[in-house]
Amino acid sequence: MSDYWSKLVHTLDPYVPGEQPKISNLIKLNTNENPYGPSPKVLHALKAESTDKLRLYPDPGSDKLKQAIADYYNVKPKQIFVGNGSDEVLAHSFQALLKHDKPILYPDITYSFYPVYCGLYQIDYETIPLSKSFGINVDDYRKPNGGIIFPNPNAPTGVGLALDSIKQLIENNPDSVVVIDEAYIDFGGNTAITLVDQYPNLLVVQTLSKSRSLAGLRVGFAIGNTQLIEGLERVKNSFNSYPVDFFAAAGAIAAFEDESYFQQTLKKIINTRDKLTADLKNLGFEVLPSQANFVFTRHPDKDAATISQGLREQDIIVRHFNKERIDQFLRITVGTDKECEALISALTSQQL
Amino acid sequence: MSDYWSKLVHTLDPYVPGEQPKISNLIKLNTNENPYGPSPKVLHALKAESTDKLRLYPDPGSDKLKQAIADYYNVKPKQIFVGNGSDEVLAHSFQALLKHDKPILYPDITYSFYPVYCGLYQIDYETIPLSKSFGINVDDYRKPNGGIIFPNPNAPTGVGLALDSIKQLIENNPDSVVVIDEAYIDFGGNTAITLVDQYPNLLVVQTLSKSRSLAGLRVGFAIGNTQLIEGLERVKNSFNSYPVDFFAAAGAIAAFEDESYFQQTLKKIINTRDKLTADLKNLGFEVLPSQANFVFTRHPDKDAATISQGLREQDIIVRHFNKERIDQFLRITVGTDKECEALISALTSQQL
Repeated sequence: MSDYWSKLVHTLDPYVPGEQPKISNLIKLNTNENPYGPSPKVLHALKAESTDKLRLYPDPGSDKLKQAIADYYNVKPKQIFVGNGSDEVLAHSFQALLKHDKPILYPDITYSFYPVYCGLYQIDYETIPLSKSFGINVDDYRKPNGGIIFPNPNAPTGVGLALDSIKQLIENNPDSVVVIDEAYIDFGGNTAITLVDQYPNLLVVQTLSKSRSLAGLRVGFAIGNTQLIEGLERVKNSFNSYPVDFFAAAGAIAAFEDESYFQQTLKKIINTRDKLTADLKNLGFEVLPSQANFVFTRHPDKDAATISQGLREQDIIVRHFNKERIDQFLRITVGTDKECEALISALTSQQL
Repeated sequence: MSDYWSKLVHTLDPYVPGEQPKISNLIKLNTNENPYGPSPKVLHALKAESTDKLRLYPDPGSDKLKQAIADYYNVKPKQIFVGNGSDEVLAHSFQALLKHDKPILYPDITYSFYPVYCGLYQIDYETIPLSKSFGINVDDYRKPNGGIIFPNPNAPTGVGLALDSIKQLIENNPDSVVVIDEAYIDFGGNTAITLVDQYPNLLVVQTLSKSRSLAGLRVGFAIGNTQLIEGLERVKNSFNSYPVDFFAAAGAIAAFEDESYFQQTLKKIINTRDKLTADLKNLGFEVLPSQANFVFTRHPDKDAATISQGLREQDIIVRHFNKERIDQFLRITVGTDKECEALISALTSQQL
């Protein structure tokens, strides 16, 4: 605490990301990173960026990257906003599009950065409980609001929402911006990007950190109506004109160009997720149906924190949220087959 | 304009960075980039980052980078904050440390992003006129304020302020945070980093974009008392936990390690600045004494906008600010000797 801090700083309750331990030989299943590296073509493109050109500022508009994303999703570059990771894109979205007189709505169990953004931008919010089976019921969002946001599939549950339900939600709330945070969409959901031309109040946010194996590069983007994008650009250009460096742009472009590698990686992860789910169920765990690269699971008779601690002693890290309704769950990232087998083996042999 | 925008977005007047034209063979003296590329050791270090490791999130605390900066400046890592370019570091500084009940103070002629940040965070400000010779008189800042910020050397004037004056300013304002924006300090000024242990209200901001030839990599940092840094970290961790990617961290570390290349590059630029200054004076231009990698110059009889346009037609871009007090000045980046000779030659042959 310091008198030099602005009043706001005293009130903040910053986000705590999953641990990034600086020790090797861990089986790291706690932050939903992709177990496979980026496409070799991406690595090649990144090497080519290491030139004298780095003395220059990057394109403040990231035009080439926007064009690559536009081509991939069949939208116009002006419908695209890019940022330094989807967390930054989300932050700007809260400030530019979700701060109104009425409270915004999001699920009671969801990405724990949302309340932090609300604190940073002093946005009122109301949480809407997920159903007993941890699903989103769109009728629960029929109430006055200044905006709606949730991940699809939801985090940390992994449970997806069908596009028809999303359409209904958007149509029920024509005066609010609806932000669909699709960090995990490629692992089994259907993207709402196909709906952006239809609904001027829909913003879809994605990241290259998960399905495209580029968490270390920091690239996220939003797609929506040009007016929503213009609002985001106005905030970005009042904050940092050049958020995306040469490497981030080049790596992201190359990632969108290597569809075959992308599909192969997704397929492997989905297969491993199915096997991990079956193995956990065999051990008596309940596993929520996951459309993401993680599973959300609990054991009817065993304490989640105890299991997490036991795994940690075996050098396996998973994520435990000490939070109402989900404190008996563990969120386990889908790693390689070998990593998941080691997890199952530890659970079995240590009787965790 | 859109009803979906928050009220704030309607009021913003975003920053307009210097043009980054997408055509080649230009002599680009408009955005104060370094005419020399980064150290070969930096390029080598950057190539080595293109690995499978990119699937992982970077260290949210950028500990290794902080250690490298701490070693270089002989401070503690906890006295360092790093961000995605110094513009981002400045943005967080405005929100975390410069938003108080009283207006902040900065010079009438200065970095044009400051009023933009004030707009973004709704901070009142008062501008303090520079002297007739475009210097900062620290006694003018003896008035109630919520903080003080200015670049040293100042931009776009290039005029520096001595450390003794800075000390006096800080001592005159013990209840306010004083931010010294040292984007150009390495080109001839004395850094105030040597004062941070003495003054708990001093924050020094620097960038690797200019003197270290890494504008394309986006790394900036602040050094100050640990409590000021903690305030910045609280805001950063409420905004984007991972602003610095693997490349940015590795390139910046390598840049701090290659002191010899750094000093050589500085020396070349300073020599070219001296020659450019002399040549401009020979053509009848007035040139403010510069401690930066640019000169701020006017001709007593010739219109600055006309000169700028004439140079543009010769494929030479300089920066003209259409702003009171300085609308007859041009800001010219110090390029290579060859680029500066081409500029002088165009001014001479075209009688600009």
